[in-house]
Amino acid sequence: MKMGKITVDPNCRIKFNNNVDYCVGTGRLGLALTEEYLKELEFVQKMIGFSYIRGHGLFSDDVSIYHEYEENGETKVEYNYTYIDRIIDSYLKLGIRPYLELGFMPGQLASGTQTIFYWKGNTTPPKDYKKWTDMVIALLVHLKKRYGEEVTSWPIEVWNEPNLPGFWYKADMEEYFKLFKETFLAIKEYDSRFKVGGPAICGVNDAVWIKAFLSFCKREGLRPDRITRHHYTVEFPERIGHYDYSKLEDSEMRFANLKSTRDIVDSYDEFKGLPIHLTEFSTSYTPKGVIHDTNINAAYLARQLSRLGDDNEAYSYWTFGDVFEEQGVPDSLFHGGFGMVAAGNIPKPTFWTFYFYKQLKLFSDECVYRDDNAVIVKKDNGYSGILWNIDEEDEIRELLMEVTDSSDYTLITKTVDENCCNPLKLWHDIGEPAYPTHAETELIKSAAWPLTESTVISAKDGVVSSQITVNRNGVVYFTLTKRQLTSDRGYDYDKVVSYH
Amino acid sequence: MKMGKITVDPNCRIKFNNNVDYCVGTGRLGLALTEEYLKELEFVQKMIGFSYIRGHGLFSDDVSIYHEYEENGETKVEYNYTYIDRIIDSYLKLGIRPYLELGFMPGQLASGTQTIFYWKGNTTPPKDYKKWTDMVIALLVHLKKRYGEEVTSWPIEVWNEPNLPGFWYKADMEEYFKLFKETFLAIKEYDSRFKVGGPAICGVNDAVWIKAFLSFCKREGLRPDRITRHHYTVEFPERIGHYDYSKLEDSEMRFANLKSTRDIVDSYDEFKGLPIHLTEFSTSYTPKGVIHDTNINAAYLARQLSRLGDDNEAYSYWTFGDVFEEQGVPDSLFHGGFGMVAAGNIPKPTFWTFYFYKQLKLFSDECVYRDDNAVIVKKDNGYSGILWNIDEEDEIRELLMEVTDSSDYTLITKTVDENCCNPLKLWHDIGEPAYPTHAETELIKSAAWPLTESTVISAKDGVVSSQITVNRNGVVYFTLTKRQLTSDRGYDYDKVVSYH
Amino acid sequence: MKMGKITVDPNCRIKFNNNVDYCVGTGRLGLALTEEYLKELEFVQKMIGFSYIRGHGLFSDDVSIYHEYEENGETKVEYNYTYIDRIIDSYLKLGIRPYLELGFMPGQLASGTQTIFYWKGNTTPPKDYKKWTDMVIALLVHLKKRYGEEVTSWPIEVWNEPNLPGFWYKADMEEYFKLFKETFLAIKEYDSRFKVGGPAICGVNDAVWIKAFLSFCKREGLRPDRITRHHYTVEFPERIGHYDYSKLEDSEMRFANLKSTRDIVDSYDEFKGLPIHLTEFSTSYTPKGVIHDTNINAAYLARQLSRLGDDNEAYSYWTFGDVFEEQGVPDSLFHGGFGMVAAGNIPKPTFWTFYFYKQLKLFSDECVYRDDNAVIVKKDNGYSGILWNIDEEDEIRELLMEVTDSSDYTLITKTVDENCCNPLKLWHDIGEPAYPTHAETELIKSAAWPLTESTVISAKDGVVSSQITVNRNGVVYFTLTKRQLTSDRGYDYDKVVSYH
Amino acid sequence: MKMGKITVDPNCRIKFNNNVDYCVGTGRLGLALTEEYLKELEFVQKMIGFSYIRGHGLFSDDVSIYHEYEENGETKVEYNYTYIDRIIDSYLKLGIRPYLELGFMPGQLASGTQTIFYWKGNTTPPKDYKKWTDMVIALLVHLKKRYGEEVTSWPIEVWNEPNLPGFWYKADMEEYFKLFKETFLAIKEYDSRFKVGGPAICGVNDAVWIKAFLSFCKREGLRPDRITRHHYTVEFPERIGHYDYSKLEDSEMRFANLKSTRDIVDSYDEFKGLPIHLTEFSTSYTPKGVIHDTNINAAYLARQLSRLGDDNEAYSYWTFGDVFEEQGVPDSLFHGGFGMVAAGNIPKPTFWTFYFYKQLKLFSDECVYRDDNAVIVKKDNGYSGILWNIDEEDEIRELLMEVTDSSDYTLITKTVDENCCNPLKLWHDIGEPAYPTHAETELIKSAAWPLTESTVISAKDGVVSSQITVNRNGVVYFTLTKRQLTSDRGYDYDKVVSYH
Repeated sequence: MKMGKITVDPNCRIKFNNNVDYCVGTGRLGLALTEEYLKELEFVQKMIGFSYIRGHGLFSDDVSIYHEYEENGETKVEYNYTYIDRIIDSYLKLGIRPYLELGFMPGQLASGTQTIFYWKGNTTPPKDYKKWTDMVIALLVHLKKRYGEEVTSWPIEVWNEPNLPGFWYKADMEEYFKLFKETFLAIKEYDSRFKVGGPAICGVNDAVWIKAFLSFCKREGLRPDRITRHHYTVEFPERIGHYDYSKLEDSEMRFANLKSTRDIVDSYDEFKGLPIHLTEFSTSYTPKGVIHDTNINAAYLARQLSRLGDDNEAYSYWTFGDVFEEQGVPDSLFHGGFGMVAAGNIPKPTFWTFYFYKQLKLFSDECVYRDDNAVIVKKDNGYSGILWNIDEEDEIRELLMEVTDSSDYTLITKTVDENCCNPLKLWHDIGEPAYPTHAETELIKSAAWPLTESTVISAKDGVVSSQITVNRNGVVYFTLTKRQLTSDRGYDYDKVVSYH
Repeated sequence: MKMGKITVDPNCRIKFNNNVDYCVGTGRLGLALTEEYLKELEFVQKMIGFSYIRGHGLFSDDVSIYHEYEENGETKVEYNYTYIDRIIDSYLKLGIRPYLELGFMPGQLASGTQTIFYWKGNTTPPKDYKKWTDMVIALLVHLKKRYGEEVTSWPIEVWNEPNLPGFWYKADMEEYFKLFKETFLAIKEYDSRFKVGGPAICGVNDAVWIKAFLSFCKREGLRPDRITRHHYTVEFPERIGHYDYSKLEDSEMRFANLKSTRDIVDSYDEFKGLPIHLTEFSTSYTPKGVIHDTNINAAYLARQLSRLGDDNEAYSYWTFGDVFEEQGVPDSLFHGGFGMVAAGNIPKPTFWTFYFYKQLKLFSDECVYRDDNAVIVKKDNGYSGILWNIDEEDEIRELLMEVTDSSDYTLITKTVDENCCNPLKLWHDIGEPAYPTHAETELIKSAAWPLTESTVISAKDGVVSSQITVNRNGVVYFTLTKRQLTSDRGYDYDKVVSYH
Repeated sequence: MKMGKITVDPNCRIKFNNNVDYCVGTGRLGLALTEEYLKELEFVQKMIGFSYIRGHGLFSDDVSIYHEYEENGETKVEYNYTYIDRIIDSYLKLGIRPYLELGFMPGQLASGTQTIFYWKGNTTPPKDYKKWTDMVIALLVHLKKRYGEEVTSWPIEVWNEPNLPGFWYKADMEEYFKLFKETFLAIKEYDSRFKVGGPAICGVNDAVWIKAFLSFCKREGLRPDRITRHHYTVEFPERIGHYDYSKLEDSEMRFANLKSTRDIVDSYDEFKGLPIHLTEFSTSYTPKGVIHDTNINAAYLARQLSRLGDDNEAYSYWTFGDVFEEQGVPDSLFHGGFGMVAAGNIPKPTFWTFYFYKQLKLFSDECVYRDDNAVIVKKDNGYSGILWNIDEEDEIRELLMEVTDSSDYTLITKTVDENCCNPLKLWHDIGEPAYPTHAETELIKSAAWPLTESTVISAKDGVVSSQITVNRNGVVYFTLTKRQLTSDRGYDYDKVVSYH
Repeated sequence: MKMGKITVDPNCRIKFNNNVDYCVGTGRLGLALTEEYLKELEFVQKMIGFSYIRGHGLFSDDVSIYHEYEENGETKVEYNYTYIDRIIDSYLKLGIRPYLELGFMPGQLASGTQTIFYWKGNTTPPKDYKKWTDMVIALLVHLKKRYGEEVTSWPIEVWNEPNLPGFWYKADMEEYFKLFKETFLAIKEYDSRFKVGGPAICGVNDAVWIKAFLSFCKREGLRPDRITRHHYTVEFPERIGHYDYSKLEDSEMRFANLKSTRDIVDSYDEFKGLPIHLTEFSTSYTPKGVIHDTNINAAYLARQLSRLGDDNEAYSYWTFGDVFEEQGVPDSLFHGGFGMVAAGNIPKPTFWTFYFYKQLKLFSDECVYRDDNAVIVKKDNGYSGILWNIDEEDEIRELLMEVTDSSDYTLITKTVDENCCNPLKLWHDIGEPAYPTHAETELIKSAAWPLTESTVISAKDGVVSSQITVNRNGVVYFTLTKRQLTSDRGYDYDKVVSYH
């Protein structure tokens, strides 16, 4: 058992932009019509509560917005908003709003036949840019009519990962810049309040793309509202059968990569300080990345969440739930899906990492301590923090927290680790049922909640001293708050628990 | 740490009448109109599921059934079923049926003014026995019209604890026997399918009452369908402020008392083998009995539930929830209430003891092992059991269970003890808030669930050997079932959790 | 069939203070613990939505706030907020806030034993005014701690109908003034933001009381925030069996009585313009007033609601639902209860009158027409109004409404009358079941919804001309709004309904 | 106004197989994953309650059951039950079970590329019949493991409409017979309790197919458990824009066609009396058949439902709801969809026809009267019936019903016609909004409920005489039952409604 010590100085101030609940990712929008998806999102919203949700496929054929037809020898266009209205109605009912990713291409508007994924999203440029921007603006007009002026505050991003040939035909940079420019100008002309971002790239060749994009914008006199990119943190995976195994990359190396984007942006006078949105991030970038379901994923992401806000205004975990079809229908309950929750609303360990950061944010935004394995904030009546352990031996962390009085303090800990909150292990131990029954799901779920413990500590010499154990791959959330004992007349707890 | 060993022989057969879910108690029926009561009952029914519910006050004035009025100089009687219908509608909707305790006395039908409790139940004999039996029969007629023939299977009991002067004026034995006889005969004449029991006594002077009651019945040629009595297991409490502190009695002494009733009944040729129902049981007999909220209560009752069925057909825990007013409105969240759940549906440790016995019953009714601190059943593919520890030092119990093959077995344990499932402690640690906010209730609730753990064990030489730790005042439920590993193509759990 | 004509000039402006949704009444607060009460309130809030709710019995013993106990030979006081917190939690969850009526007297704080109602509210002055104001302030302190600063905006009223000896011992005016003064001063001293009103009288001897109260306040230098009184509109009822039959009074006579209060208040320089709140109003003032369940009640109140705002800032219908116990537990489904809805959430015709006024308010607050049987408002794209018929022959009202264009308009009518929305009649026709089954309740409910009809009318010469039939005791809500036909490609409604 | 007279003789017995609730149709199974679909089904099940549900696409790629993969140079097969389990779990939760239609072809198992519909169901024979039957049996094995022995009672049908080249490549009869034989034999060999039917044809060339199918079965010694076919009743539609307009066919002509199938089956000694299932029926056979949303559809189907049971054991309306994608995503709220309910759970008039037949079935199965526009059943305490009017002038039908006593009877009518229950008209009148807001949906829904009315009729000379108006395209449900008036003490309805 390792030992560590943390001394907290309440007057210290650490930069800590905890924007954990700004946005979350989702598989293609069409899946938002399904019940399982909405139940998972309802759970996530009730427990954590994100402001925005971003997914692919807004213009893909299953959402069915764009239609051409022949009339009197002419080709005409009409739009169908039946499904997109239903989807956004559901989102708003759950207190979440769309982060509009404009893509992919409707079949009838596409210039080619290249598709991506099991669900066949067309990834070619429009055959006619005017028809594309007409479609985009018609949608915004429709949304504003239905949902009111607030629509102008919904973020917009142009396309997804054009730097990959699968996502954008030949990864053609010039063509993407054209798409961005046409779209950006059309939207700003319609209503300049809309915020539009790009280039939505992933980590492949990122520096080249960011520089080219900014140079293009500078040249064309465009000022994007945000620079957007993605952030995944594993090495290239090994595929065995249905599953992808991959090694985690060094956290510092990944943070450095993010910093390089920040630096490039800031190197342009015109764009210095422009907000950066990580419109996707996770560990593994495949929907069969088995690491997603593990406790180490939760711990690794705890460190990520303590730092992502340093160089980025926002960052959106990909994805909230396991309803996802990019590589087909999941073959089994636990299958390495991107989700924070598995089918049947089983929270994975990683779910709790996000839950803890949200609790931390609700507690306070004044950070007083941060190291590689901890972040702590304070408010008037106490402290709250998150501790984690990424694949190291079990550790006891001694915390010395300064306080201004000598009263009692209540320490609450919520622990998620391989011993006490490990649904993957329970599922494995009962035989890895691919399609669990309702009873099996309930059983697995009963092993998926943090262990909550409490203790009372008296301040001594202006310091509250406590010890918190963080086991290998564990994440621990704690609050330490001043305690006021208000026993009812005649109630003596010590006697209650000892007299029998 | 103590060590203990249990060797399970699957061919052994132990008498074990696990009737845990037959009936549960409730405060006066009028409280069944309230939302908090129904929410608690809904939770209990969903998680455990009892068949019957028994409470006082069916004929008390708040249910408002009996009314006299003057017309043309005559006193006439009319009945009002508005509330009792609403109550029973609610019960049936929750899948539970009434165990009809006939009492107390409507004010207008009473021969005196003595009342009991904060809610003033009149506990005097009827001023007119004919009007009493008319009222009883009119109710049964009404219920049968509304709910159908199934009503004849709802158990009936005449009055409550007439051996106490508070519950029955002067504890007048002859008067009670008269009440029983008149009621019994009227009901049997109306429809002999109804099952009617008595004398519903508590442990005070019980042998005298049981003998006198049976002798009376014999003399009068009555054959009650069940003998009913109560069973509490604490010494006389010390009252401090609002609260009652009392010592637990020796379990064996209490079992012996129950056996003595069984023996008395069986000593009559006419009544030999007549079913006995414990229509109330718990540890403390006061609604401010602080022990009810503790872990030791859960452990003590685990032993009770392993044995109560030996001499009694049925036994009904008093009560399912904390909505209760006999000594006034509860002053605080945890106040020693009788309930398995506290306000806001916080399960107390004792709730889990009942939950575990229900799970055990669903698993199997073939008992293969029982000692003072354990009970184990088996079915084809494995074993299930409950272990407990009543105020002794932490213990590791080694279980050796015979099996017929050499495959792997999954051991699931669900542990409730002072460390991992102790909502009372968490509430105390945050200062004992009398009226917790919603957030405080959720926090306390998060410390009120069992810790679920699993492991896989390979049978060796036809024996599965496991170790289960049962801490002081802990209750542990386990299942050990044959495991069939059905890994999906390419899924290798060991690699999943180690490769990163 | 009578004929009537209404010509609407959109430039006309009529004074019309439509404050229909400010407050609604309820039986004693303790009933807010019950499920049926909360289900009815949930329905009313979902369909209409009131801001405040006012009921008796805040300090009555069933809510159980005030307690005295002996300790060391001294009498001490303690408070119990378990139930009041539960009640207010429920209210806030349903989007409604308490209008705090301070009363009646806790038994232990009372100077006498006089009680009122089946539920025995003590209506005597406090034995000790200091203990009374301590209790009041302690409650406000507690509420502010639990619910925050918004509590200071919850209206407060001192006691209920002190001008009746049943509600206030001997209707002792001086004693009431003392109560008002002590309470008013204590609250203002604690937090002057609280708004406190009185004297909460009913119509008996009202002028004398109002004058004396205002003179007292003037003399004592008190400035109440509101003057409060009640408003019922029937003659003294005839009681037959359980039920009260009474004749409606002339509406104008009742409006004149309200005007007289307004005039008295305005005759004091100090109090001129002080808001008046009718903290209770209805037709019959008994909970067995059979008229409450009829269609004429709905029509009579339609006229009331068109005028009550003229002299009064606010007016609160007594009561939202039929869960009520002042004269005992209801004997039958329809029993003349005060409620807008009957048990099982059956809306009575009167419910729709309130619903229609709420819809009218949501439509617009610009009144352009009002007569004894109609009120009409306008906004940019059309008109909305309510028409009624109080016990006169069926009438066709021709409406000529000026518009500024020649497009089509959609007229929607929702009709509630004895033919199409009369649950009382259906219940009678099926035999007046006192305790309907679930199926009977659903059947009755199916006859309790307005008939919704629509038609399209083309404007001619700047006028839309329509005819609306208002049958005897009917209430009709309508909207007339500009229509924009947006048929989908190929959809031809006339062909759809004629081609087969 | 037409007049008609019906004289009901309670001793008359009419053959009337009212099997309205046996089965209902649905768009492809994959849509059962969506929330809107499940909400509509929940509503339909709560209000009507069907036993089985039949839809296409069980084996289509979106359900994703069948998968081939390469391993070690070999092609292997694996199955994925994630979605089908989720679908059937949802069905069972709603109290409905699948009527298993085996089809269409998984892409990897298909012999060709022909697809049907927007959602591209492959309609070619299997490339390998062994792999097809392996897949079928594997599914049944899986379902039995998950859902138990009840699975053997779920009906099975082989393919859909093979007599149309779009649904079965070239409408190749011999190939279909092969498919039927292989499938039938494999299932019966696995578990002979399964009931398997075919040939699932529509009305095109039906006699030829039925004869050939039966001859084939006779020749091969197969005994199908049911003969299945479809039944639509409109002429070939005219397509305008998105919509299909078509004329209704003569009912008698359609009934005669059904009778011809019955006669063919009965002409075989081996198959005489074999049950016939109409596994689909409706008026129009297109999902844009505008007639589906009208009142005439409801009236026309009322006649159908009175007769379909004469020659067929079962008949399944195509479909319960409007979530359907065969010709793409619906363009507008009302679009001629097959559903009984429109999006947002707006019941169409036709919904009520089914609701009324279910109510009739619950009332009694003893038919005492039937004509072209009426069907009436009786039980001990009265009568119930359905009257309709298919596009004729409004009619008053006088009913003379014999009774055995001279008491009062309650007549309840529920009327659905173009005046009082016509959501399509209201939607049209407000401008035909394609994507109604929540408020618009609620408004339309408020015009979509039957008008419920009641009256009391005294029997005279052993006859109850009543008049029921059935307007053009109206359907009226009625019950006439003996009335027992049980007025509470003092309640006098006539006085209640007249004294004010």
